[in-house]
Formats: sequence, C-alpha cells, structure tokens
Amino acid sequence: MRYGGIEAGGTKWVCAVADRPAELLETETFPTTAPGETVSRAIRFFTKNGPVGALGVGAFGPVDIRPASPTWGTITTTPKPGWADTDLAAALRSGLGVPIALDTDVNAAALGEWRHGAAAGLDTFCYITVGTGIGGGAVAGGRIVHGLLHPEFGHMRIPHDRARDPFGGICPFHGDCLEGLASGEAIRQRWGQAGQQLPGREPWELEARYLALALVNVICLLSPQRIIVGGGVAKQPALLPLVRGQVRDLLAGYLRASELTDPDAIERYIVPPGLGDCSGAIGAIELAQGAAAAGAPGG
Amino acid sequence: MRYGGIEAGGTKWVCAVADRPAELLETETFPTTAPGETVSRAIRFFTKNGPVGALGVGAFGPVDIRPASPTWGTITTTPKPGWADTDLAAALRSGLGVPIALDTDVNAAALGEWRHGAAAGLDTFCYITVGTGIGGGAVAGGRIVHGLLHPEFGHMRIPHDRARDPFGGICPFHGDCLEGLASGEAIRQRWGQAGQQLPGREPWELEARYLALALVNVICLLSPQRIIVGGGVAKQPALLPLVRGQVRDLLAGYLRASELTDPDAIERYIVPPGLGDCSGAIGAIELAQGAAAAGAPGG
Repeated sequence: MRYGGIEAGGTKWVCAVADRPAELLETETFPTTAPGETVSRAIRFFTKNGPVGALGVGAFGPVDIRPASPTWGTITTTPKPGWADTDLAAALRSGLGVPIALDTDVNAAALGEWRHGAAAGLDTFCYITVGTGIGGGAVAGGRIVHGLLHPEFGHMRIPHDRARDPFGGICPFHGDCLEGLASGEAIRQRWGQAGQQLPGREPWELEARYLALALVNVICLLSPQRIIVGGGVAKQPALLPLVRGQVRDLLAGYLRASELTDPDAIERYIVPPGLGDCSGAIGAIELAQGAAAAGAPGG
Repeated sequence: MRYGGIEAGGTKWVCAVADRPAELLETETFPTTAPGETVSRAIRFFTKNGPVGALGVGAFGPVDIRPASPTWGTITTTPKPGWADTDLAAALRSGLGVPIALDTDVNAAALGEWRHGAAAGLDTFCYITVGTGIGGGAVAGGRIVHGLLHPEFGHMRIPHDRARDPFGGICPFHGDCLEGLASGEAIRQRWGQAGQQLPGREPWELEARYLALALVNVICLLSPQRIIVGGGVAKQPALLPLVRGQVRDLLAGYLRASELTDPDAIERYIVPPGLGDCSGAIGAIELAQGAAAAGAPGG
C-alpha cells in the first residue's frame, strides 16, 4: 500500500508519499496559507502522487487528537488567522476518503526520529522544534505522550530577566512564555530582523539562555534519555553548543549522569534531528501505516 | 506473603507491612536522622512486624534507580547532611535479606494513588509533594516515568519576581528553582517561621503563584489527566483553591479542556491525595509485591 503523510505545520506543510516510511518517494513543501487553499493543495498532491491507502497527519496545535472527542481532528485555539476551529481531519477526509491518523506535528516528528532517526532504541525522549513557534513532543516508557490533550512545550513559563531583555514577548495568550520569548517570531520582533541576519553573539546567547532554561525544565519533568532540537532557528550553528553549555551550568551537577555533566557526552544528548527536515513527514507516514493497520476513522 | 514498604522521605520515613497493598497492618513513622540510625530503625520495625518476603522502597533523591547501574540503590547528590552517596539498598538488604524494589518516594506515591487512590483509572497523571522539599512523580501512557534518571520536579526553573519577592531561594545547587522558592523550608526561611504559623494571605498567595507556575509547566510538558498535590505545605486549606485559580489565569484559555478552564472541573483536576499520608507507603508495598513476583535483587 502507498501511504500519504503531511507535516501540517503552522508555517509550512510538507506532503509526502511512500511505500515504506523511511523512503519518501515524492515530497512537496508549501506555505501554510488559508485553510481551504492549503488543504486543497495537499489533496492535489496526494491525488497526483497516489492513490494513497491511508493518510497520517502531524498537525500544529493546539489540535484535538482525543480519539473519543466529538471535535477530533479540529485545530482549536491557535492564534494563526483563519485556522481556529478548523476541522482539518474532515476537510482531508472529504477530499481523499481514506483512513486518517492524526497527532501533533512534534509528536509525529518524535515518532519519525524514534523509528528511523536520532532516538532509535530509546524509550523516553523529547523532540522540540524551535521555528516560527515552539513545540515539543515526547515519548515516555515507549509510548507517545498524549494525556489530557497533548504536550504544549512552547507555553511553559521560564524566568525572564527584564533587565537584560526588556522585550515583553509575543504570545497573544501568555506574553513571555517560552514561545513568546524564544520563537523565531519573537527573535524577529525583538531585534527587528530575522535570526539569520542577526550580527554578533548577544542575540544567540540570550536565545540559548531561554532554550537552556526550557530544556532544564524538560529534564526535570520528563527525564529524557535524549533531546532532539529541530526547527529553523535551531539551524544557527552557534546555538546548540551554547545551549548545551548553559544546560550544564544551570543543572550545576545536581543530576548525576554523564549526559548532563560531561562536555562530550552532552553533545550526544542534546542533538539535531537525525532525519533533517523530514522527521515530521516520515513520522506522518508511520502514522498512516498505523491507521491502515488499525482501520482508523475516515475510510 | 507479607510485604514491607518504606516511604523513605528526606524528612521522615514511614514503614509499613501488609498482606495486601491497600490494607496496611502496622505502620511506624519516624524522623530521617543519620543513615545508619534510620536504616536500623526500619530494620527493627520489619523484624518485629515480619517476617516480610519482599521490601519496596520509595526513596528521596536524587537516587540511582537505573536497574543496570553499578550504583543502583544509592542516594547520590542530596544536600541532606550525611546522606550523599549512601547505598540505601545495600544497607537494607544486609539487614533483611529479601528482594528489594526501589523507586523515588514520589513515584511510589504516584503508584499508590494510581492503584488505590485519586488516580485510579487514569493513564497519564502526576503526583507532586510540597513539603520540606518539593518532588514529583509521573505516570505517562500507563507507565511510571523513569527515563535517564527520574523526574526531579522540584528543580525546574520558574519566573521569580524579585520586586515582589526579594528572597533569593534556598536550593544549594540552583538558588531560586521551584524547591528553592516554594518548599516548606523556603517558606520558613523567607518568613522566619513555619507555614502553619503564618498570618495573613500574602505568604499563601505568593506560594500559590509559584506552585501554579510549576503546574502550568507540568501541564505544558506532560499533559496529565490529573495532578495530585500532597505534602505538608499543601495541607494549608487556603492553598489549593488559590493554586487552581492561578493555573486557570496563567493558562488563559489556551488549552481547551474543561478541566483547565471550568472552576468546578478544575477542583477535580488539581486534587489532594486520595490516600492521605499513606500514598507513599501503599505504593512501596505495591513495589514490594512486584519485586516478589519478579525476583528482584537482594534476596
């Protein structure tokens, strides 16, 4: 069977088809515009490159992924214009008529990295994306974490030193939560230009500080065996080395594991994605494969 | 078989024996003094009320609970005088000669609440204790979270408004981490007296603020279906209602679940332990039962 996968991010969508999850046959990437237009473009891709027998979707959120919920498949409270209360699963289902499996974009990326990338063989780890927004997915004890809704790493609260950084944060719900302070959009608004164009070390040292505080919280709450940091902002070469150093400093030797104290070992603990930009799409194909096997809703 | 359980906390130990986990036959509670004295007292209890066929221990930490580790069973970096690098499992084993199962005190309490208390029927939830120190245990997807080491909720970083609260925090490793700001010992040092004796609302509003920030982070990272808050500080009747209100305010409607937005529903979401002060001991008995079934080390 051919499977379809969508990494349905808030900034761009990546559509892919594959017969086996880790071998993408065709992919297409396009910006996330209005819901109708974006979904139509995805349906055209799968019609052209299909037919697909099942579709996996890793969606930006918050998104209702509770299987028993009457609003399953709906993007809920996103500040993204036009997308709040969009029934994404219904729109895709009406266009394709195949079983659909749905999770968050970051849980899908975690799944891809788990099966084929930097988290192979682990049972407890996190995938964090630092791009236009910030999100995180987690696997604990060999299972993707869902719980009440799904993790929303980007909205944790971290210390904000207003003397060093008077910028108030951009989150329309929380102001200076992690995403409000450290997302790509926060960088752009604070400094007046996108991260790629920023000169000097100060912006990256501040960014590393916020991300390190966030990773310390992830380590204290989930005790991951590895943390994968993806997304466009994380591609800045200076960033991850600064983050690793700050994490070590912030933990101050309290947690006795070489991964958290040794400068060499932490390089293998806080890592970029093993699948590059394909973690989400490959994870979505994995979801599709699961949907086909289980006979998920939508067919 | 008769089982023994110890909630080996940093302030007090609770020893218990039972034939069935939820029916404690005898218990004894005593302060955590020097390691040798404390362990001897526990061994006397089990000798008098036994013999027990297996022992479960929920220990304060950080504690090495990795099954394959050469230092399994050892309390590691605790600032508690005399306890750093104490091989707790070896000391108990040499005194009792029975299989021992070990987890953190808060994971044991979570286990007790899961099987017999306020988390019955859930698959993803947290147990947090706010006492002399602060700790947290978690179950995700039906499994106790261990990961690299084990969760250490007390050492997450939260915003610290130094204008409102110039107190620097008491954690010897991190200063103003959660435990540094909001533990019972932090309350005592900030206000010059223990929480039970504090007049007025201000100390409790500040405490509720810190705990609410912590719970928001727990919600954003783990998405628990319920949060159980135990420990001596949490017994202050005014506290949990203030925490619930602050959690709602801080989340600001971003996560759309009645448990997080509805004033009645959140009363059933952030709750005291269903087993009162026995969560840890009952969870430790559950651990003992597992050890007996699995033939854990120590016999």
